[in-house]
Amino acid sequence: MARREPIVIKVEASSRYNITIDSNLNQYAAQAISEKTIVLISDNQVFPIYGKNLIEALEASAKRVFSYIIPAGEKSKSAEQYLNLLRQMVNDGIDRDSAVLALGGGVVGDLAGFVAASYMRGISFYQMPSSLLAMVDASIGGKTAINIPEGKNLVGAFWQPKEVFIDIDFLASLSQKEFKLGAAEHFKHGLIANKDILNDIKDPDFKPSGNKKRLAKMVAKSAAVKAAIVSIDEKEQGKRAFLNLGHNIAHAIEAATNHTVPHGDAVAYGLLFDSFLSYKRGYKDLRAKTIEFLEYLEPISMDIEFDRLEPYLASDKKTKAKIQHFILLEDLEKPIIVNDISPTELKTAWQYLKEIR
Amino acid sequence: MARREPIVIKVEASSRYNITIDSNLNQYAAQAISEKTIVLISDNQVFPIYGKNLIEALEASAKRVFSYIIPAGEKSKSAEQYLNLLRQMVNDGIDRDSAVLALGGGVVGDLAGFVAASYMRGISFYQMPSSLLAMVDASIGGKTAINIPEGKNLVGAFWQPKEVFIDIDFLASLSQKEFKLGAAEHFKHGLIANKDILNDIKDPDFKPSGNKKRLAKMVAKSAAVKAAIVSIDEKEQGKRAFLNLGHNIAHAIEAATNHTVPHGDAVAYGLLFDSFLSYKRGYKDLRAKTIEFLEYLEPISMDIEFDRLEPYLASDKKTKAKIQHFILLEDLEKPIIVNDISPTELKTAWQYLKEIR
Repeated sequence: MARREPIVIKVEASSRYNITIDSNLNQYAAQAISEKTIVLISDNQVFPIYGKNLIEALEASAKRVFSYIIPAGEKSKSAEQYLNLLRQMVNDGIDRDSAVLALGGGVVGDLAGFVAASYMRGISFYQMPSSLLAMVDASIGGKTAINIPEGKNLVGAFWQPKEVFIDIDFLASLSQKEFKLGAAEHFKHGLIANKDILNDIKDPDFKPSGNKKRLAKMVAKSAAVKAAIVSIDEKEQGKRAFLNLGHNIAHAIEAATNHTVPHGDAVAYGLLFDSFLSYKRGYKDLRAKTIEFLEYLEPISMDIEFDRLEPYLASDKKTKAKIQHFILLEDLEKPIIVNDISPTELKTAWQYLKEIR
Repeated sequence: MARREPIVIKVEASSRYNITIDSNLNQYAAQAISEKTIVLISDNQVFPIYGKNLIEALEASAKRVFSYIIPAGEKSKSAEQYLNLLRQMVNDGIDRDSAVLALGGGVVGDLAGFVAASYMRGISFYQMPSSLLAMVDASIGGKTAINIPEGKNLVGAFWQPKEVFIDIDFLASLSQKEFKLGAAEHFKHGLIANKDILNDIKDPDFKPSGNKKRLAKMVAKSAAVKAAIVSIDEKEQGKRAFLNLGHNIAHAIEAATNHTVPHGDAVAYGLLFDSFLSYKRGYKDLRAKTIEFLEYLEPISMDIEFDRLEPYLASDKKTKAKIQHFILLEDLEKPIIVNDISPTELKTAWQYLKEIR
């Protein structure tokens, strides 16, 4: 089979780098990484499937590879795990000229990224995302973080990768539900910047076992939305906030349910919630579009009273004084930042959501 | 008394900022800091002397101040203390628009700086150094870090302050010995970039109770050396390494003695050590100059066999293969980076140092 040309998307933030999308990327990645010593950070679900071939490719390119395998799941994004990794790196003699390579989903990428950002004040970092969520969202844009008991992602750094290698083959091992959870951010990218994406949920190839060339194109559309936004506003001082569409209520649902509702499900609810807020403010009625997505995703049902969510929607949890900024949609591809959402609007939108579901 | 004009030194790294040097700087600092909420991080030696007046000035400028006081000393530069501070900040409702202000010496500045660098992926940071060492060196250039059991400063970030406020009044509470320890970096700056500085050790005002206008000028010369170098090479990919003059052997002495030899003393020995190496390579003989400094500083005596230092002088502690890069002096103000120092040269230089002391 002739080698396909990979799809390349450019990010132009404080540093410039490529997102390279293709099947069978191990050998390409091994050659693209210039550092000779690689700290490969992965988890115990992804590493057993993809680790061996990747290490073989790296070693064939004369790299020295140290593999650190963490337990899969959000609990590994802890300060303890973070410090363990850093200490292990010192013990293994990792120096400033080495690189960290994250092989996994959002948890692995966030944790490995903050390790790379802070080891000896920062070393090279590469991402090899394994989930759809990480491919279209988490691996792009340099947000790295760990959790502390007081909350998620409260400690971290902006630390851009030197390259993101998106190997479409990795999608094949996702369950249908894992795939759909990633589709929530994909669909969100469609709403804020590329309405073509919205039709992907009806595409027969939009599934783990779909045609790889088609999947690569769909992932690329979404990665391009994220890349364009972080290129304009790396540190979230303006338009990067558009990516928070659906996320205020999603974060509140997650916090109020102690993260028993998956992020993708919570975002899906949030997209409908924000569509309702937008409609009630006189903007385009996009509820039918987002309901289509809810029907595709089939999120788990919830029964949460608004009172439980409200504290998490304040901009300052301490003073509870002011509602957070919200992202609304004037129309498809027309997100805006709104600073004056009222408690009453929120309550009405939540009531609507409860009736729909 | 008419208000003097402060001395202002500009740093032009990835961000641009001022180092402002004067007496009685609290009010100026309170007005220069634009953020409304301030996390003041200090230690239990410095805070009782200077904290109250600073807080009054900040509050008079309508700032909300949260004071976090850590135990004085290197032990506070731990991962535990770092996480405690971050968690406390969340509990106090500190948001992204707040600023961290470090009031103290190198330990406080390094720790507070890494807290600022990583809290919610980075918030504003200001330095108010209290020791001579922190004024001429540690507070400038954005190196922040904590220690882990495997070694010092192995975890951290480059995070530039928005301004450095050097209040010369703070020198008055230093002991003569504390002052002299800071003088080691001051003298080092003289050797690498401004030979005028070398005469300061003979100046009757170069002491904690010296004339403040004279002290401000002396501190400014040294801060200007550091500022110029970090402006050229913020991330230590080239000339910033010149600041390591004397530091290879200093770090080895500190590590081999479990940090019982103070940093200033170790650096003073290191400056003579590197002067000897330079002389033996046929460069200018600067030993007499650096011996003058040793006589001024009166470092504690040591009796360390070279074998104990040698492992710490390898560029990779694991492989012990190669000697670190050294900074030598072709002449005053002419530092060079040397990559081929041999174990024999090191041993001979150490033998020389032992005979001198």
